[in-house]
Amino acid sequence: MYTCSIERMSDKIRTFSRYGDAGHGGVTRYSLSEESIQARDEFVRRMTAIGAVIEYDDLANIYATLPGTDENAKRIAMGSHCDSVKNGGNYDGILGVMSAMEVLETVAAEKIPHKHPLTAMIFTNEEGAEFPPCMMCSGIMAHDYMPERFRDNFAYDKMMKSVSIVDCKTTFGEKLAGFKYKGDAANRMSPEKYEALFETHIEQGPILEDAGKDIGVVTCVLGQMLYRVRFTGFAAHAGTFPMKKRHDAFHAAAEALCWLHEEIDKLQQDDLVYTTGEVVIHPCVNTVIPDFFDFSIDVRHEDPDVLDKVREILMELPKRKWQQCDCEVVLGWNRDTVYWNKTLVGYVREAAEELGYSHMDINSGAGHDAQYISYMIPTTMIFAPSEKGLSHCEAEHTSDELCTKAASVMLNAVLKCDASGI
Amino acid sequence: MYTCSIERMSDKIRTFSRYGDAGHGGVTRYSLSEESIQARDEFVRRMTAIGAVIEYDDLANIYATLPGTDENAKRIAMGSHCDSVKNGGNYDGILGVMSAMEVLETVAAEKIPHKHPLTAMIFTNEEGAEFPPCMMCSGIMAHDYMPERFRDNFAYDKMMKSVSIVDCKTTFGEKLAGFKYKGDAANRMSPEKYEALFETHIEQGPILEDAGKDIGVVTCVLGQMLYRVRFTGFAAHAGTFPMKKRHDAFHAAAEALCWLHEEIDKLQQDDLVYTTGEVVIHPCVNTVIPDFFDFSIDVRHEDPDVLDKVREILMELPKRKWQQCDCEVVLGWNRDTVYWNKTLVGYVREAAEELGYSHMDINSGAGHDAQYISYMIPTTMIFAPSEKGLSHCEAEHTSDELCTKAASVMLNAVLKCDASGI
Repeated sequence: MYTCSIERMSDKIRTFSRYGDAGHGGVTRYSLSEESIQARDEFVRRMTAIGAVIEYDDLANIYATLPGTDENAKRIAMGSHCDSVKNGGNYDGILGVMSAMEVLETVAAEKIPHKHPLTAMIFTNEEGAEFPPCMMCSGIMAHDYMPERFRDNFAYDKMMKSVSIVDCKTTFGEKLAGFKYKGDAANRMSPEKYEALFETHIEQGPILEDAGKDIGVVTCVLGQMLYRVRFTGFAAHAGTFPMKKRHDAFHAAAEALCWLHEEIDKLQQDDLVYTTGEVVIHPCVNTVIPDFFDFSIDVRHEDPDVLDKVREILMELPKRKWQQCDCEVVLGWNRDTVYWNKTLVGYVREAAEELGYSHMDINSGAGHDAQYISYMIPTTMIFAPSEKGLSHCEAEHTSDELCTKAASVMLNAVLKCDASGI
Repeated sequence: MYTCSIERMSDKIRTFSRYGDAGHGGVTRYSLSEESIQARDEFVRRMTAIGAVIEYDDLANIYATLPGTDENAKRIAMGSHCDSVKNGGNYDGILGVMSAMEVLETVAAEKIPHKHPLTAMIFTNEEGAEFPPCMMCSGIMAHDYMPERFRDNFAYDKMMKSVSIVDCKTTFGEKLAGFKYKGDAANRMSPEKYEALFETHIEQGPILEDAGKDIGVVTCVLGQMLYRVRFTGFAAHAGTFPMKKRHDAFHAAAEALCWLHEEIDKLQQDDLVYTTGEVVIHPCVNTVIPDFFDFSIDVRHEDPDVLDKVREILMELPKRKWQQCDCEVVLGWNRDTVYWNKTLVGYVREAAEELGYSHMDINSGAGHDAQYISYMIPTTMIFAPSEKGLSHCEAEHTSDELCTKAASVMLNAVLKCDASGI
C-alpha cells in the first residue's frame, strides 16, 4: 500500500487557504474571480513541476495529466472544484483538488507504475455562488448523457446567459470569454477519453465524526427536490390598518412553516433533511404590512417514496388559508438519487480497509460534480470527516491527517482501478 | 362658510400624479429627485400666479405666502410633503400640499379677508424613502424644541450624513447641496414667525370609510415603538446536517412570531396595531440552514400602559429557547403619543360641522411632519378617507370630492384661527 505525504498535504492546505482569504479563517473565492486565478496558477505550477501535461477546455475546466505505460488506455481522473461560497471554508471543493494533486505528486515522487494516464482536475463553478446554478460545468459536460428531463437545465447557451447575482449584470459567458483559463472544447472530459472519475470531498455533516470514522465510503447522492412556498396578502400601513383586516404574508408564512415542521416530523424519517434557507419578502419596510413572502424548501432523502410523502404535505398548503393570504407551491427542480459505480465503491472500501483506516458507508446529502459526471462515465466519491459537521462557513475544518488519509485512500483505489479495470 | 373648488382640485390631482408616474396608477417621487423638482416647479408656478411670495430654506422646505391685513401678525401655515415611497400613491403627502394650495387659491379668487399671512408649504423628505429617517426636515426644524431624548435623532450634522439606500453612497447633504430649492436657513419655520400649522392628509386606514364619514378630526398621533427581534443559530449544509442537531434561525423566528401574535392578542386591545414588516436573513441561500434571522416589530397605541404590556411580552422572548437559537430584543426607537392643540382641533370640528360634512374624531396611527412641528408651534391635522384603507401603494385613492371637502374644512378652520387666535 502507498500513502500520501502529510507534509506536502499540509503545505497545500496552508497555501490554497491564502487565495481568497476572507480574514476570519475562511475564503471567498468565486468561480472566474481573481482569487480563483491565483488558486489555478498554484495548481498549474505544482502540476507542471512534476511533469504533468496541462490542458484547459472551453468551460475553463483544467486537467493535469501524468502519462501511463499503456498508450491506448483511457484516463482515470480525480478532481473537484476550487471555487467557494461567500465566506466559505478551506476544504469544500479544494480538498478534492488538493487530494488529486497529492495523488499525482505521490505517484511522481515514488515512481509508482500505472497503465492509465492519471488526471488531476478542477471543475469550474461548482458552487454557483456568483453565477447559478450549482455544478454548472459538470452539468454542461454531461448534458447529452443526462435523463431528458434534466437536460434543459444545463443547455450550453442557457448557462452562458446566467447573470451574476453579485453585480446583477455580467453574464457567465461574458466573464468566461476573457478568462485566463478558457481553452478548447476538444479538451472536455468525455467517455471516449476518460475511464472513471474519483472525487474526494469533506462530508459537510457530522456523521463520520459522531461515529469516530476516518473515511466515508460514499455509495450515493440523495434524491433532492426544491420547492418555493409563496404567500400573497396585501400591503397596508403599519400604523393605520386594523389587525383584524390584515392579510399579512409574513405571519402566514411563519404559521405555515411551523405547521410544515409538525407534519413532516410526523413521518418519523430520521434520515430525511429539509431546509428553508432562502426568503423573499416584499416590500420589507418596517412600516408596511408585507404583501408577499416566499421561502425555499429543499428536501433530501434516498427513498423516492419518502420524498413523495413530503410532496403531499407541501401540496396541502395551498388548500388552507394562512392569515387570509393565498398560498402557492412551485417546483424549483428535483433530481433522483444517484448511485455510484459499485466496482469503484468496492475499490474505495478495500483501500480504506487495507490501509487500516476506520471507515463506514455513507450517502451524500450534498450535490457534487461527480453526480452529473456519473451520467457519462463510472464515478465514485470518498469523504473526509468535517469537524462538528460544519461546512459552507469559515469554521469548516478537517485535520491535515484526515485530509491525507482521504488522499491515500483515493491513491490506492485509483491504482486498483488502473490494475483491474471496472 | 367658504368652499373650495372641485374643478381646481381635480386639475391639481391629475397634474401632480404625472410627476414620478410609475406606470401603474401611482408614483415614485423620492425627495430631492428630478420628479420632486417637477412637483415643486408646479407648486411655485401656481402659487406665483396668485401673487404668493415664494421662499426656500436651507433644508429646501418651500413656503408660499399671501400677506394678511395685520402687518404684525404671525403666519398661519398649511402644508405637507410631495415625496413618496417607492411605488406609492397620488395622495399620501401631496394631498396636504394641494389642499394648502387650494386654500390660498380660494382666498385669492374670492378675495377672502384675513389678518394673518397665510402660507402653503412643502416639507422636504417626509418619507425618508431614499434618505432615512422619516420626517427628517420637520425633525431638524423642531430639534431645539423636542424632548431631550429625541433630539439626537435629528441633529443637523447627523442628518446631512444620511446615506442613500438607493445608491448606497450619496449623502443627503451632498444631494441637498446641489438642489435647486436649497435656500436660506433664515427662512425656516419658527415660533417667532409662525402662529400655527394645519396639515391635511389621507387617513391611510379604513376607519373613516367603514364609518361612512367624510372628514377625520384628528386628535393625536399614536405613541409608537420599534424593536428588532434577532435569532442566532448556526449555519450548516442543507443536505448533510441532521434535523435534530440544527439551530435554525428562521424556524426559531417563525415560532416566536406565532407566539407573539398569540400573546399580544390576549391583551384584547382592539386599537393596538403591531407590524413585523422588515426581515434580515443570513445567508439566505436555499442550500444553507440560516444562522441569523431578524425582524422588525412596530407597535402603536395611544396609551403608554398598553405599549408597556407589549414591551413586557417582547422582553419574554430572550428568556426562552427557540429551536436552540439565542434571541435578542433591541430597541430601535420609541416616541410618545402627541396630542394636537385643542383649540385648533375644535376649529376643525366646528368647520366640518358648519359645512355639513359627516365627521368623527380619529387618531393618527402614522407619523406626520405636523407631529414634530407640534413641539414648536400649535398644530393640528385633518384626514380625508382612504378607499379600502390602502396607502403606501399605487392603489391608494380618495375621490376628488372628498379631497375638496378636506380642503374646505382646512380653509374654514384656518379662517377661524385667523379671526379668533389660539
